Amino acid sequence: MIVLVPYAAARPKTRLADALDPAERESFSRAMLADVVDAVVDAGVEPTVVATESVELDARASVVVDDRPLSRAVNDRLAGAEEPTAVVMSDLALATPRVLSRLLDAGGDVVVAPGRGGGTNALVVRHPAFRVDYHGTSYLDHLRVARDVGASVREFDSMRLSTDIDEPADLVEVLLHTDGRARDWLLDAGFEVDAHDGRVGVRRER
Amino acid sequence: MIVLVPYAAARPKTRLADALDPAERESFSRAMLADVVDAVVDAGVEPTVVATESVELDARASVVVDDRPLSRAVNDRLAGAEEPTAVVMSDLALATPRVLSRLLDAGGDVVVAPGRGGGTNALVVRHPAFRVDYHGTSYLDHLRVARDVGASVREFDSMRLSTDIDEPADLVEVLLHTDGRARDWLLDAGFEVDAHDGRVGVRRER
Repeated sequence: MIVLVPYAAARPKTRLADALDPAERESFSRAMLADVVDAVVDAGVEPTVVATESVELDARASVVVDDRPLSRAVNDRLAGAEEPTAVVMSDLALATPRVLSRLLDAGGDVVVAPGRGGGTNALVVRHPAFRVDYHGTSYLDHLRVARDVGASVREFDSMRLSTDIDEPADLVEVLLHTDGRARDWLLDAGFEVDAHDGRVGVRRER
Repeated sequence: MIVLVPYAAARPKTRLADALDPAERESFSRAMLADVVDAVVDAGVEPTVVATESVELDARASVVVDDRPLSRAVNDRLAGAEEPTAVVMSDLALATPRVLSRLLDAGGDVVVAPGRGGGTNALVVRHPAFRVDYHGTSYLDHLRVARDVGASVREFDSMRLSTDIDEPADLVEVLLHTDGRARDWLLDAGFEVDAHDGRVGVRRER
């Protein structure tokens, strides 16, 4: 199994702008990337980080630089793949070795773990004709593409893999459900769980 | 197995106020309740809807009225339960018979399916001393309560059960991942998936 972890190295996580400044967003996104890489390694596969520019990474992965748009960079690798290939997003801070092992073991020509809002957060591809299209509601698009090429599809139902950390409201999930670098990063930056009026979010002490 | 589906019948789903008027919120919440009941029935158990006031329900469940706060109404039933008891929230519109069967079969004295923001969306209780407290970050509270009474705990990792439909941003998940009454209700009301600027939400035609 090949596991690709795409990483947009330049100006990552712009939708976290209300919570983190640009340098913080870069640093936090690297922490999430390292957590994802660690979880993949502990699931038994050394992943390849496909980064838009060179990144230093304190975790066990090979890094290749590919500055093409995400879908093209992934599809180029799917086209040449000689074994099953998984694509795991770099902001899945809640990923654990356990859920990734289940994902990599799940049967089906194409296994899709949806994210909130119709995204595709993780994917296993075992069919030679399947290609990705991460634009828009990619979850539905990927189901359709699989049907079109005659590939069997399996939905992978996981809260951990559905939770990409995109917006300030997502940060609380990192505090609640993880114990890796991304959580440490948030704690060091002064974030804590904040419950009020029946809603739970984060609050930051500066 | 006893399956309880608590339902707050009066002024449900106030956090959907930006998308739906009060009568719509009531009607939509009933559609979600009926979908949840159907999914439980298809998972093999006829559930008991514990409603704060009398409701007519076009689905196969017994309805009991209990106007006490949620945690007290549930705990009173846990205290007297002679068999394992599950508690499934009425707004889990993405619940399927398949994921509910997996939940009811999952081992552990206490099985907890977290919701976003630290909530507890579904729960199986097989330990006589375990009690619920749905206030605040109930997921962490429930882990602690289980530890305190010496109950083994299992986290149930499911996107479908983690997705309670609380806010307008959640409505798109119903359109993307279900085919029940709640989805039909949204379509009849003019909602459709709206993708723009890399974000996916709903748009309403009136």
